[in-house]
Amino acid sequence: MHTSLFTTQAIADGIVERDFLIDDVPGVLWSPESASPGTPLVLMGHGGGLHKRSARLVGRARDAVLHDGFAVAAIDAPGHGDRPRSTEDQRWVEAMFADRAAGRSMASTIAAYNASLADRAVPEWRATIDALTRLPEIGDGGPIGYSGMTLASAIGIPLAAVDPRITAAIFGGVFVYDELIRAARQVSIPIEFLLPWDDDEIDRDSGLTLFGEFGSLDKTLHAFPGSHFTVPVDRIDTRFFVRHLRGGGAAAA
Amino acid sequence: MHTSLFTTQAIADGIVERDFLIDDVPGVLWSPESASPGTPLVLMGHGGGLHKRSARLVGRARDAVLHDGFAVAAIDAPGHGDRPRSTEDQRWVEAMFADRAAGRSMASTIAAYNASLADRAVPEWRATIDALTRLPEIGDGGPIGYSGMTLASAIGIPLAAVDPRITAAIFGGVFVYDELIRAARQVSIPIEFLLPWDDDEIDRDSGLTLFGEFGSLDKTLHAFPGSHFTVPVDRIDTRFFVRHLRGGGAAAA
Repeated sequence: MHTSLFTTQAIADGIVERDFLIDDVPGVLWSPESASPGTPLVLMGHGGGLHKRSARLVGRARDAVLHDGFAVAAIDAPGHGDRPRSTEDQRWVEAMFADRAAGRSMASTIAAYNASLADRAVPEWRATIDALTRLPEIGDGGPIGYSGMTLASAIGIPLAAVDPRITAAIFGGVFVYDELIRAARQVSIPIEFLLPWDDDEIDRDSGLTLFGEFGSLDKTLHAFPGSHFTVPVDRIDTRFFVRHLRGGGAAAA
Repeated sequence: MHTSLFTTQAIADGIVERDFLIDDVPGVLWSPESASPGTPLVLMGHGGGLHKRSARLVGRARDAVLHDGFAVAAIDAPGHGDRPRSTEDQRWVEAMFADRAAGRSMASTIAAYNASLADRAVPEWRATIDALTRLPEIGDGGPIGYSGMTLASAIGIPLAAVDPRITAAIFGGVFVYDELIRAARQVSIPIEFLLPWDDDEIDRDSGLTLFGEFGSLDKTLHAFPGSHFTVPVDRIDTRFFVRHLRGGGAAAA
């Protein structure tokens, strides 16, 4: 399957990996070699300062393709990865370093920066969904999951609040601010929320509050010792996407 | 396998079900028909006012035997199930009803009652472990899990604090009092802690505090909407015992 959307294609170990470009936003799609129409799509966001091919993201993406038969897409957030950083973004990044150097909380800077990134990234993800659901092996109307902590939750929560095509999501470990809480209240799909119990940078109570505000009836919070850098995926794997995107719990071969 | 420990034996659907009596404490053991030495043992506690054959406990026990190849044991707590209620226990039960009728918090009554039940039940569970680990199909030194919320956690947490034979445990939804916090600090085995997010009877913050106090390095908290009557086991199944009692994640056939 090769359309003009894609700029590269490589096949290895049963995984088709293709770079794409949608309105100047670069992304990558990993999919099973044998993908057929209706293949569930998982959107994976990257953390702040990282990019679409960050090592852990790629690891999770490959696992999802090989073990669950999903297609997985990642895009660079504005000013991340292969995308130039705007002057304004550069000021926010410098302000974060200045906050840290001065021993000040970075919270207000991160809140402003993340909110701005989300305003730009939400329409980019929506355009990505538009394009990928036109691929025959994915198709329109199928299940779509979104997964990502930290910056990826700052973007994914408002995305899930406005785009009904996303049917299940994993969030967590994110700086909390008013816009994010308002967005969480609009989210009604099943969610899992990951809470680092001992995060030096993110207040535990703010995460508990955000979890409580999600409008979803089907929501679970999973807390674990350590910071958002140390998510013990092996301990909290509840086969969430397999249950929600496969609609019955049966994993693909 | 039939020893003098057992008073009944029935085999159906691949499950051997045997009643036992250890120092006047009645219990039941469910095990695979084909159990061989080293079969992991899971101890399942029942909730307050319930008993060793409560419907949900039996359901979870049968699943653990059939799907994971575990042996599962349950015993009646003091004054529960087939065991006579002492005069003192009767007073606590009446005090709880009086608290509820008067619109008072039941917390102090439940704390005193649960602490007393735990003082008696911990040695009973230890004697049960002594007896069951002498069975050839279980044997000494193998992995032992403990699972149970509410009263079963009030008993299981101090049990896990003092008996090193228990190697992994699931707790949650329990009234918190000082002795329980002190016991939790002594627990160092892997645990999962289930927290009902909207429990009318158990304060959310007390559960979060208790989770924080567990001495375990490997611990995860799983919170879900609703009360302790509505644990969504299908949403929070992390194959915890399969990982910890089978030592590698491979389930038995």
